[in-house]
Amino acid sequence: MTVNMTEDQLLVLVIKYLREGKRSSLQLLLEELHPYDFAQLYRGLPEKHHHKFLLYLTPSQIADLIQELDYEMQIEILYKLGIERSSKVMNLMDNDDLADLLNELSIDKIQEFLDVMRKEDSQEIQSLMKYPADTAGGLMNNQFIWINAHYTVRQAVDKLKDYASFSENIYYLYVINDDKQLVGVVSYRDLLIANIDDIIEDLMFSRVVSVTVDQDQEEVAQIIERYDFIAVPVVDHHNVLQGIITVDDAFDVIIREANEDIEKLSASGKDIDFNTKAGTAAIRRLPWLVLLLFIGLVSGSILSFFEDTLEQVVALIFFMPMIAGMTGNTGTQSLAVVVRGFATTEVNKKVITRLILRELRVGLLIGVTCAILITTIAAVWQSDLLLGAVVGTSLFVSLIIGTLAGTVIPIVLHRVGVDPAVASGPLITTLNDIFSLLIYFGTATAFLTQIL
Amino acid sequence: MTVNMTEDQLLVLVIKYLREGKRSSLQLLLEELHPYDFAQLYRGLPEKHHHKFLLYLTPSQIADLIQELDYEMQIEILYKLGIERSSKVMNLMDNDDLADLLNELSIDKIQEFLDVMRKEDSQEIQSLMKYPADTAGGLMNNQFIWINAHYTVRQAVDKLKDYASFSENIYYLYVINDDKQLVGVVSYRDLLIANIDDIIEDLMFSRVVSVTVDQDQEEVAQIIERYDFIAVPVVDHHNVLQGIITVDDAFDVIIREANEDIEKLSASGKDIDFNTKAGTAAIRRLPWLVLLLFIGLVSGSILSFFEDTLEQVVALIFFMPMIAGMTGNTGTQSLAVVVRGFATTEVNKKVITRLILRELRVGLLIGVTCAILITTIAAVWQSDLLLGAVVGTSLFVSLIIGTLAGTVIPIVLHRVGVDPAVASGPLITTLNDIFSLLIYFGTATAFLTQIL
Repeated sequence: MTVNMTEDQLLVLVIKYLREGKRSSLQLLLEELHPYDFAQLYRGLPEKHHHKFLLYLTPSQIADLIQELDYEMQIEILYKLGIERSSKVMNLMDNDDLADLLNELSIDKIQEFLDVMRKEDSQEIQSLMKYPADTAGGLMNNQFIWINAHYTVRQAVDKLKDYASFSENIYYLYVINDDKQLVGVVSYRDLLIANIDDIIEDLMFSRVVSVTVDQDQEEVAQIIERYDFIAVPVVDHHNVLQGIITVDDAFDVIIREANEDIEKLSASGKDIDFNTKAGTAAIRRLPWLVLLLFIGLVSGSILSFFEDTLEQVVALIFFMPMIAGMTGNTGTQSLAVVVRGFATTEVNKKVITRLILRELRVGLLIGVTCAILITTIAAVWQSDLLLGAVVGTSLFVSLIIGTLAGTVIPIVLHRVGVDPAVASGPLITTLNDIFSLLIYFGTATAFLTQIL
Repeated sequence: MTVNMTEDQLLVLVIKYLREGKRSSLQLLLEELHPYDFAQLYRGLPEKHHHKFLLYLTPSQIADLIQELDYEMQIEILYKLGIERSSKVMNLMDNDDLADLLNELSIDKIQEFLDVMRKEDSQEIQSLMKYPADTAGGLMNNQFIWINAHYTVRQAVDKLKDYASFSENIYYLYVINDDKQLVGVVSYRDLLIANIDDIIEDLMFSRVVSVTVDQDQEEVAQIIERYDFIAVPVVDHHNVLQGIITVDDAFDVIIREANEDIEKLSASGKDIDFNTKAGTAAIRRLPWLVLLLFIGLVSGSILSFFEDTLEQVVALIFFMPMIAGMTGNTGTQSLAVVVRGFATTEVNKKVITRLILRELRVGLLIGVTCAILITTIAAVWQSDLLLGAVVGTSLFVSLIIGTLAGTVIPIVLHRVGVDPAVASGPLITTLNDIFSLLIYFGTATAFLTQIL
């Protein structure tokens, strides 16, 4: 029935069922939907229907729903449910999502929720909450099945059947030894084509790729992407299996990291999307703008040092926006290459040296080309070869410095562990403004004193 | 043996085996490795060892290797192998990857390769090559298993076993009716917990989410991400199942699209990474820079219109870099929000209207705050309240216009179907330069004529 309905049609139907109090019809409808659809419905429902909608959902459906929402809405739902019903829902949530959610609450509130949970879950959650959210430990969940290397295929399949209802997202079986250390991995396919009495150890794949609990989430996502994995096992420093990270979590990491890179490049402030309110967006964007306003005033005050030069050759000012703009542009281009490179490549000293030398050569090539072009234009436009030479030389030097600034500044910030968000595009553009004005008017003043 | 070896150690061992002609030792080693590792080895091997390495690999290993490399290296390998061995390898490659690869070759060359392939593969490839690479059709492969809705669980499991060796990456079984139309989906878990004589139709999930062959790859990736799918089925306009798209392909799309967004924002030119040669990078970056150079000259020539005003109040020039910079910065911030929003949100008229109104309010809020700040600074620094008022008013107006330009320009370009790469950050920065100079000196001239 629901097969071909649009989201809007579904929403209308759900509101109808809620109004008419038809819980069983709603349940029949929900059975055909995915957690993502639950969340879309919840977001689309007018506020006044939220309470009844939650009342009509089973705890397991609420657990599915809650995992698709952002923290604010998650916490709102927990409060709406009250502590007792919340605890039922939390017992059904994936432990990694729950740990992330609890980390958003105050310590008192966390304890209150932990107290009403099943003891084994509460312990598990507390151990997960130890790991920073951006590490493998913070990303992993315990929805995996392990088998012992000494099992037969029959024993493995039996275990798989026992646990089949407990998780929908199991694609590999991880093999451990008697010390719970990860020693191999077996896929469904391997089990299907093996004989029922084969020993797991003989058919498992033993060069299993794993990550450690403290590994950075970006590295984990890169590994999953490279190897086209559906999941990767997480081990501690003794190679004891602790959990798994699934491809959908890695997917979210990649999207989040890409958004962060773009925030860096544009200094657009954290977490502004189409739904952010104007006031919130303005407040998140303003700190950057105010900082850049002061840096802009610094550029301006540089000009006051060169008042004499400016008054002698007014035409100098006509080329100022171009030189400042070009230096900013080439810096942004280099910055983009560096920021994306850091996100997708393993970086070491050799790579960085090669990169800096490459960008230096790029700066030289771009500088020579643009300098020849602008010298010709300036000389013809202003009928002044000396002015052309001043503009060309300055552009050449600023382009090289601009390119290097766009490369070296983010690398240095990354190295010293400063939040790379500081190496934003506008910041480099503004710094390059300052460099280019100093170079341009410095060169002009030097040439002019030579002549006068 | 290889369990704990680093990439470098593996490479040394491989070179040793190649030098000593130990093909069987090499084969033992390769059995423990993933396709990604093959590719890392190939990239790491000195050129002179490539030929022998390829000679020692089986066609199926070469197929795995080739799918991890970029087009240039893929084509190099095909030429090294010669037409006959290539055809063996191509018969073993995923059809979607092969179609993409052949699309990179000349028409003559394509025909030459198609002629030596198995007929059914060659037909399949040709039908895949019809779809543009950035649509679901261009992304899909045929590594899926379909079952009929009338099958019993036993028949489904038998079919699964028959095909198990043919694909490693099957996680769902798609259910079709007698007209080959997609009617449902069944997971391993469903089969495991069902009775062996149940009918598939009774246990399948029938609200199956699918995409159509001509759907944009970005939408496909969004669907896979939202629903946490491992794969999504692709149908034609009659709902007939044509292929599947797996999460790893969606992953690549997301990374590629994020890189493209960053290229747009920074005008950094297509496909420049840490390995691009300096000359190539310079050539890809130059067209933008030359265009921006001319736009920069336009800003400069605007100044020449205001020569009189400038000569009367030299202090005006000190605030010029700040006003131009701030307008550019706020534009880039808005642009980043729009570009990322397009990548991750479904966009319709309502969303766009709301977004433009939101950004207008953001512009007003930012404008008021910064204008008050700069009026105070300018009035105190230059002891001139009138100058403060001119600078404050201009900044207020330029920030609003800058914010709107950063929002509206990419939306309009997106609407009229112009390559959105044109809406680059530097372009908007440079346009905003022009706007802000016109506003600033226009306001200043107006105020001054009032007084003089």
